[in-house]
Parts: sequence; C-alpha cells; structure tokens
Amino acid sequence: MIGMGKFDISTPSGFPEFSPAAEQLRQQWVATIQSVFTKYGFISLTTPLVEREENLLGKGGNAKEMYALKRVHDDPNDKSHSGNALRFDHTVPLALYVARHFNDLTFPFKRSVIGPVFRGERAQKGRFRQFDQCDIDIIGNGKLNVSNDALVVAVIVEIFQKLEIGEFVVGVNNRKILTGMAKDLGIDPKAFLDLWDDREKISEEAFQSRLESFQAQSGKVIAALEKFKSISDEDFVKNWVSGKTQACYNAIIKFGESFGEESLRGARELVLVLEILDKRLKVDRRHFAPNLFLARGLDYYTGTVYETMMIRHPEFGSICSGGRYDDLAEIFTRKKLPGVGISIGLTRLFAQCLLAGIITPTKASPTQALLIAADEEAMPKLLEIGADLRASGIVAENYLEDKKLSKQFDYADKLGIPYCVVMGENELRDGVVQVKDMTTGERENVKVEDLRQVFDKAL
Amino acid sequence: MIGMGKFDISTPSGFPEFSPAAEQLRQQWVATIQSVFTKYGFISLTTPLVEREENLLGKGGNAKEMYALKRVHDDPNDKSHSGNALRFDHTVPLALYVARHFNDLTFPFKRSVIGPVFRGERAQKGRFRQFDQCDIDIIGNGKLNVSNDALVVAVIVEIFQKLEIGEFVVGVNNRKILTGMAKDLGIDPKAFLDLWDDREKISEEAFQSRLESFQAQSGKVIAALEKFKSISDEDFVKNWVSGKTQACYNAIIKFGESFGEESLRGARELVLVLEILDKRLKVDRRHFAPNLFLARGLDYYTGTVYETMMIRHPEFGSICSGGRYDDLAEIFTRKKLPGVGISIGLTRLFAQCLLAGIITPTKASPTQALLIAADEEAMPKLLEIGADLRASGIVAENYLEDKKLSKQFDYADKLGIPYCVVMGENELRDGVVQVKDMTTGERENVKVEDLRQVFDKAL
Repeated sequence: MIGMGKFDISTPSGFPEFSPAAEQLRQQWVATIQSVFTKYGFISLTTPLVEREENLLGKGGNAKEMYALKRVHDDPNDKSHSGNALRFDHTVPLALYVARHFNDLTFPFKRSVIGPVFRGERAQKGRFRQFDQCDIDIIGNGKLNVSNDALVVAVIVEIFQKLEIGEFVVGVNNRKILTGMAKDLGIDPKAFLDLWDDREKISEEAFQSRLESFQAQSGKVIAALEKFKSISDEDFVKNWVSGKTQACYNAIIKFGESFGEESLRGARELVLVLEILDKRLKVDRRHFAPNLFLARGLDYYTGTVYETMMIRHPEFGSICSGGRYDDLAEIFTRKKLPGVGISIGLTRLFAQCLLAGIITPTKASPTQALLIAADEEAMPKLLEIGADLRASGIVAENYLEDKKLSKQFDYADKLGIPYCVVMGENELRDGVVQVKDMTTGERENVKVEDLRQVFDKAL
Repeated sequence: MIGMGKFDISTPSGFPEFSPAAEQLRQQWVATIQSVFTKYGFISLTTPLVEREENLLGKGGNAKEMYALKRVHDDPNDKSHSGNALRFDHTVPLALYVARHFNDLTFPFKRSVIGPVFRGERAQKGRFRQFDQCDIDIIGNGKLNVSNDALVVAVIVEIFQKLEIGEFVVGVNNRKILTGMAKDLGIDPKAFLDLWDDREKISEEAFQSRLESFQAQSGKVIAALEKFKSISDEDFVKNWVSGKTQACYNAIIKFGESFGEESLRGARELVLVLEILDKRLKVDRRHFAPNLFLARGLDYYTGTVYETMMIRHPEFGSICSGGRYDDLAEIFTRKKLPGVGISIGLTRLFAQCLLAGIITPTKASPTQALLIAADEEAMPKLLEIGADLRASGIVAENYLEDKKLSKQFDYADKLGIPYCVVMGENELRDGVVQVKDMTTGERENVKVEDLRQVFDKAL
C-alpha cells in the first residue's frame, strides 16, 4: 500500500501501466504493427469495449472471467445500464460488427484491430486483466480462398521483423491433416487434438497411455506415429532450411495421403500456403515452417493453424496464434462467414521482452530540441524560434520555468532529449544560439537563421 | 431488436461504433491530434481503464454515473476483483499516475492522452457512455509558469486548423479577474462564478434578480457591470481583430485594476497569455480571443480558463475546454502539483460533425492498388507484384477470390480504392498489366517493371 493516508494509490492488480520511456516504446510498437496491417489493406476498426453480456456468453465467454458493468450507485428505474460486460477478445465483437453491418460491408472483409480486452483471471505474474490484443481477420461471404491463409503469415512475419525482437518462427499446420488421421485411426478427432495439444506438456508415458486409451488398433497407431518422422526429422528440417522445399512438400502430401481424403486435402492446403509464402510473397523461410505437430486448443479452427515461437525464448510460449474457421458469427446471423485470423498478445509480449532485456526503453519524451533561455530577456525570441522549428517539422519545446541552467540541462538529459538550444543576452544581441549535443556534450554557435538547417542535417 | 432468434445484436445504448469509412476518418483525426501533441513535446501516455473505485470517488467521481466492475459469476473467495471501476475522465488517472511515479518523473511533466472514458449517464441523443477524450496537461512540481497557459492554446488551435472543421475560436479568460471582482463587490466568489456560468442560459430578469439576491451594494454592482462594456463592446472586438491588441490589453488591465489586487493579477496573467500567443507563437487572432465572460463550471480552476466554440455551430457547445488548477493530486500526495490542461471531446465532436455534414467519409479501405487476376494463371505473378509494391511503400492488395471481374471492380469501387491493376493470360505473356484509374475509368497498359514509377507519380 502506497500513497497518503486513506488512499491506496497503486494500480488495481492485473491492470498494468508503464514508465514514460517504456510507454513511448510500447506506442512505437503499436505504430509499427498498425503500419504493417495498413500496408496489406486491412481496414482498422475499433468497436465498443462493452457489449451485451448474453452475446459475449453466447460466443464462448467464460462467466467466471468476464467483467460485467454495474453502476456504483445504481438507479433501479433505469435498466439500460445492466446486462453489459467488457469484451474478452476481439473475435466476438467482430462477429457482432459483421452481423450488424452485413449489408454495408464489402467482402472479403479485411479488418485489423489493436486495443484492450479484459479477463478477470486469477492474479499471477505475467497474467493481466486488461491487455492489448492486435488482431487481423479476413472474412468471406460464403467462401474464402485458402491463399488468404498465407497472407496473414506474411503480415505477422513483417511485423516481428520490424519489431526487432530476435529470431522467431511461425509454425503452420492444417488441422484437417490431424482430424483426417484421427478418423482414419478410428479415434475421436476432438480427443485426438486435445492429446496432441498436450503432447509437449506431458511425459512420453502419459502420452502413450492416453493414446492407448483410445483403443484404436495399436498396430495402426504405432505405424502412424512412425510416419511423423518423415515430416519432422532432421532431413525434413534440413531440406526446408536449405530451400529443397519440393522434397518437404512431397513428404507432407505423402503423409496426408496415407490417412485418407480429409488428411490429403489438409496436406494440399498446407503445401499451397507454404508455396505462396515462399515463392510468391518471398517470406524468409527462417521465419515460417510447416509444423505438423501443431493443433491449437480452440475448437473452432477447421483448417490452417498458426503459432509463433521465439527461438531463444520458448518460455514465452506462442506470441502470436490463430487459424482458419468455418463460420465467424453462426449464432448472430444465418450468413455463412468463413474466416482466417491471427492475434498478437501485445501487452504480454511487450512486458516479457522488457523483463528479458530484449528491449530497452531510452527516450521518455518525443522532443528533439529543448530551448533554454540563459537570461530572461531571451525568452520572447526563444518562443518565436520554438514556433519556427515546430513549423518546419522539428519537435521543439521551450523550457519555461525559472530554474538554474543546470536544472534545465538535467531536464533534457533525463527525458533523452538529444539537443539543447541556449540563448542568453549576448546571443540575443548577436543573433546566434548555442546548440549543445547532449550525447557528445559538444557545443556550437549557430546563427538563428541557420538553426533549421543544422537540425535538418542532425535529425 | 435486430439479429437472429434469441440474440439482440445491437450495440448497448450509449456505446457507439462507426461504419468502416467513418471509422477511417475518425482514426485520421486521432492521428492528426496525436501528431500535434507530439510536435509540442507532450509525452503520450495510456493508463489503465480501470482504477480503484475509492480513488475515483475521492476525486470527484459521481457514483451514479460510475461503472464498477463485477465478474458475471463471481468467486466470493477472490476479493481481488472487487472495488474497481472504469475511469470517467483522464485527470484522476493522471493524478494517480503522477503520485505513483513521482520520483521517476521529470517536471514540468507534459503528458498527452487519447482514449476512452466511461460515464453511465442517462441515454439521450449525442450523449455517449463510452467516448474518447483527448487531453494535454502540463504539471509543475511546486510552481508552473503562466506562459504554459499560452502553449496549450497554440496546440489546440493547430489541431482544429488541421482537422478543417470550419471557423472556431478559443475563448480565454482568467478566473482571478472574476473572483477578485466578486470579493471587491462583497459577493461570495463561488456563487458569483455559478451565476456567471448560467448567464447565457437564463433571462436578463433572472440574472438581475440573482445578482440582487447577493445583497451587494447595488450601485457598485451596476457600475461594475457597466465596466464590462469596455472589454466586450464593438470597439474592443474591432481592435482585437484588426491587431490593435495594445488597446485591448490596456482595457483588460484597467478593468482588472478597478476591482483590486486579485483582479489585476488575473488581468496581467491574461494579457501575458494573449501576448505570447499573438506575438511569440504567432497564432492567428481569428482563432483565439479574450472573453471575460467566461467562467467554466468546474470548481478546481484557479486562473486561466478556456472554451472553444465553432462559430457556425454554437449549438455544439464548447468543443474543447480546460484551464489552470492549483493542485492536481492533493488527496494522493503531499507534493503541490499545479497544472494547466485542456480536453477535446473527440467522439462527441466527431459525431456532431458527421451529422451536420461538416465531414464526409469517403474511403473505407487504406488500399491504393487492388490487384486483379483476369485469368487464374496470372495469380502467382500478381501475388509477386503485390509483394513488390508493398515493399516499395504502396498499399497493395490482391483480390484472391474466384469471382467475376465485374465483382472484383465492385470491391474496389465500394471501398474507395483508387487503382486496379489487372493481369490476364495475355498480359502475363507480354509482361504488362492494365492499370485502371477508378475515378476517371481510364485504362493504361504498363510494363510490370514500370508499375512502381506509375504509382510513385500518381499517389
């Protein structure tokens, strides 16, 4: 408990805020992500943070984790405030938006969103109750070509390259391969996918015993597991990395083929997605790879699935996941709306990168030049110079308080402002200013009329 | 009630969302506002949407309008979810942020914020329960120079100029003039300011009768009201507009002087602010003016106050208001933190401008070039061209669905995409594409390698 007397001024548990410098960096991330979304033609939307509780619950909201709104002093005569809750993801609000605006939208509808969602989870390290998610989805009206499934990977790879957070790889799979395989083996596909998802969390023995519990023909199952080697062993990986992609595609198709039609269809879709990424969109193969072990927990994925791992930080878990689904809004509209989407857990990733020292905030202020009056007489002229610099696109700020010069330089130092422009009586008389480079400590006298050029060069 | 069967899919009352085209325009507004805030060196912050209820209530939150959070199915054993509420403005969160991070902040602390706040008001036209506010505040540690009060006006004027919403004027006053005057007349300053605020809402008779109820010496009051002419009559306005500012400043000082020391101090501050804006920051005098009738309702303003009117739309009310306050966070910290701030009610203003036809959304998508395959064979090459165009900074999008050409052009048309790039078998063979200007309908054959230059010129 911090603060004065009766007020606990700390943030509520699970609602993070950052220092000014960290926050500036976080906002740069947001700008980078937004710029890539835009470059690919996604329409940026923000929908309300609040929706009807029944709609959120109807689309898979967990009542234990969902925050409902209630006025602190409620008026029982005004019912219009009850029955609403905070959104827990961006997918349900998208489904509602598309159902509401169906006739005014143009399909395929490509939308991006960056904004907070809320989950009343148990408070624990790295778990937030308010956090920003960055989503893109492409929604078709009736049908949606599988090549869209490649596009979203290209978007994600470009974002993580630009964020410069180190090596990463987007794993791509197609669930039909696994569900087809399960059917072929006579196992319930859902139980099979669940086991698949748990594969890395449980022991080899536990895996075997759950597999046996399916009571499938054990010979067939063992033979099937054997076949996984062909699409994951050292040769496969080497071929992928070295560009012998055709060998990989052949292995994937052959693998799919061996489990029947559904599996083969999944394999063909997967190969198509990989081919477009590699040959057409020229995405660096170090940043995406087929991963046939990938299942992804959520029930509603029906084809392509993605997850993204940081190679040096597997402990982060998947930093960006998603997939293809058959119907976005089946409970809200009779239209069939297949889609593909992917989501970056921004707040969590940012906090993890900060903690791991992958990123280091340095600059708390956007200011490029701090204007300092060494004598009061120089202030009016310096105010004019500040306005002129801003008019020519330089982020310029006048220090307006009556403080010692050393305090004023401190201000620039602490905020990471790279240049100070100082003017006193003498400089005012001579029509010059002293420009101090805060990194090197060098000072230089510059004519007022040349100041803009100096910054144009330096910044 | 719209939607299918049991689900009411409309937005909850008071939680607005916009069409894709309107939303793109709204986001342009946000980007414009943000860019001006940044240019003046404001540090952009986002604080949590949720704070402790007691802190919000302690700083003037209205319990009847405040939304508390409550999990839909609450777990009585986990108290960490209760006692929190949604913020109703950006000022209390700023006070909490400054109190929490005091030792890590550099003062004066200049912060900007753009984001949603929540008020559980009665639902009525033009009133929202979730709406975006855009605030800047400059917070001093102990003291804060009055010239800061000029700076925030320069920021606001630049924003409204860039938004191109028509003529507007920021009215500037200093409350000390009015409180000094009340004291001089023997009237309670708070009651006097309240009356002043109601001045335009009530009849001349009601005004007179409330003035008389103060039981001040009526001769003095009448003489005082008479003096208001000197700082508001036709001559005063003409002098201001034509640049005879010194005459206006003299009138303001003389007016202040006639009501004693506090009034004079207020008059001097007001003149200083106006002078800096006019002479130093060179802000266009059509966009700001002294308005000594201005009081602003909120109790905590103690010096400069602002309100902004659209000249052709007085019915919008003030679109941007604020002022100087003595202490930001007195209940959260013992530090004295004087500040000055101003706030734009973005959602309300945007909705009003849409409704009044002042702005017209036209473009629903950011895409500049839609790539269309007239034959399936051309798709792989077009995917490559799309990636190349994006790599050179053009927002390019491939149409990937199997639809008639006319449907594909429709897509571009409806989304406001200015150019289509079409390739079929023949073009593929000849290494050309057909570029269609969607505004003029003109088509032109362009070599694939020249495409980038064509767009560099056109866009």
